[in-house]
Amino acid sequence: MPHFRITLAYDGSDFVGWQRQPSGTSIQGLVEEILAELDGQPVPVAGAGRTDAGVHAFGQVASFSLRRSFESRAIVGALNARLPEAVRVVEAAEVESGFHARFDARAKHYRYRIWNSRVMQPQERRYAWHVTVPLDVPAMAAAARLLEGRHDLTAFRSAGGGAGRAERVISRSEVVVPAADRLQAAPAGALVLYEIQADGFLRHMVRAIVGSLVEVGLGRRPVEWMSDVVRLRDRKQAGPTAPARGLVLVSVRYDPAVLAVEPQPFLVKNLVS
Amino acid sequence: MPHFRITLAYDGSDFVGWQRQPSGTSIQGLVEEILAELDGQPVPVAGAGRTDAGVHAFGQVASFSLRRSFESRAIVGALNARLPEAVRVVEAAEVESGFHARFDARAKHYRYRIWNSRVMQPQERRYAWHVTVPLDVPAMAAAARLLEGRHDLTAFRSAGGGAGRAERVISRSEVVVPAADRLQAAPAGALVLYEIQADGFLRHMVRAIVGSLVEVGLGRRPVEWMSDVVRLRDRKQAGPTAPARGLVLVSVRYDPAVLAVEPQPFLVKNLVS
Repeated sequence: MPHFRITLAYDGSDFVGWQRQPSGTSIQGLVEEILAELDGQPVPVAGAGRTDAGVHAFGQVASFSLRRSFESRAIVGALNARLPEAVRVVEAAEVESGFHARFDARAKHYRYRIWNSRVMQPQERRYAWHVTVPLDVPAMAAAARLLEGRHDLTAFRSAGGGAGRAERVISRSEVVVPAADRLQAAPAGALVLYEIQADGFLRHMVRAIVGSLVEVGLGRRPVEWMSDVVRLRDRKQAGPTAPARGLVLVSVRYDPAVLAVEPQPFLVKNLVS
Repeated sequence: MPHFRITLAYDGSDFVGWQRQPSGTSIQGLVEEILAELDGQPVPVAGAGRTDAGVHAFGQVASFSLRRSFESRAIVGALNARLPEAVRVVEAAEVESGFHARFDARAKHYRYRIWNSRVMQPQERRYAWHVTVPLDVPAMAAAARLLEGRHDLTAFRSAGGGAGRAERVISRSEVVVPAADRLQAAPAGALVLYEIQADGFLRHMVRAIVGSLVEVGLGRRPVEWMSDVVRLRDRKQAGPTAPARGLVLVSVRYDPAVLAVEPQPFLVKNLVS
């Protein structure tokens, strides 16, 4: 059976998340329905990251098999013609039959967006956490750096997030203030971004890290507290879980070897950085 | 009677525009209702720019008089407590009684956002015009420059836009590709901006200019055609009207003399560039 990879961008505001739920609309559910109609049989779709309700994506990756053969271009066309505007397929490629979007992922890049100004910019209300008190960004940046490397991250795993190994390698943990404020007509420093890349993520991990970084940014905790939190491995010692709407799955990395078997995958346009 | 100026940011997607209409929700209507309740009398509010349905603002300015005296801070608080999240007051100041947000405006800055990529980024779907064919941005930039200066802009005035003088001074007319694409996880060059500042605008003027610039960007017209269009003063010779959702009123300029009489206006935070 031909096997495919697709890359998706979505506005997660009005969905119950990537994953199918007993009720409500999921992105996985939408994609599976359309593919089932296309292929005339149920098509289970595996996503790289199980983004929660309200979480967005620029570069979610999913994999599935079809009974019938399709050109990648036709898959992109069929999906985008039927998906709501809040979900877009930006790329499709035929891949080796063993490829699995989640199990083969080497690293994922998430971004968390904070709007740090007394008044929320209306255009940002679905895409950022509004923190009204001015944040100490250099302190947050220093605290973020302490997370780089291999750690047991139990401290940032939500209840119900399983009991498996919590050791992960964080290859990037950085707080950034984009220079583009002028073009967004934003007050200097209003947009504060947290960029994290790791080989795996625990349930609500990025949001718990951001909640903790904001504790540092508000001056409630010193920079080094972040290391203490990691060491204690106790979720109750970390900060609160930041809201879902600020989170974006930016991209997923794979070994080139497991990727497209096609000479030229149909890349609609590289939405992924 | 104490007289005030407020600055507003809004997501225009779900409104009939700034101005009150026989039906539907307008931003002016929302503000007038809240102020009337606050002051116990009808409060007519004048806006600097009559943004159409779907057009956004980072820095709309409005003026009004109240019978009772209020601190600027209280006006911001009262409005933001009652306005929907899609509309925010970012500043208020008491001003001289003669101040009028529209008649005293010296210049207004509008931005138009184009998403130039085969697939629309879902987060941009309410805030940009989706143009799928790759645009010749240098040609558009050259054509935009031809509009700087004093011109009769009848060519860009919509039917029903009045018959008054159409001469305006455009002090900035620039096509820009922001360098911030990396942070937006956008494909290089996907976001194309048009920045225009003028001493006044005709009905649908920015959208007609953008529709014409896109004709140049698609290679359907040469750069110099833009000057011909202006010279002919015939709306039918210009390009189509670009969709409302890409347009943002960024800021309004006034002479410092007509502005705040307060020593320290209550500036929530300068959302305006």
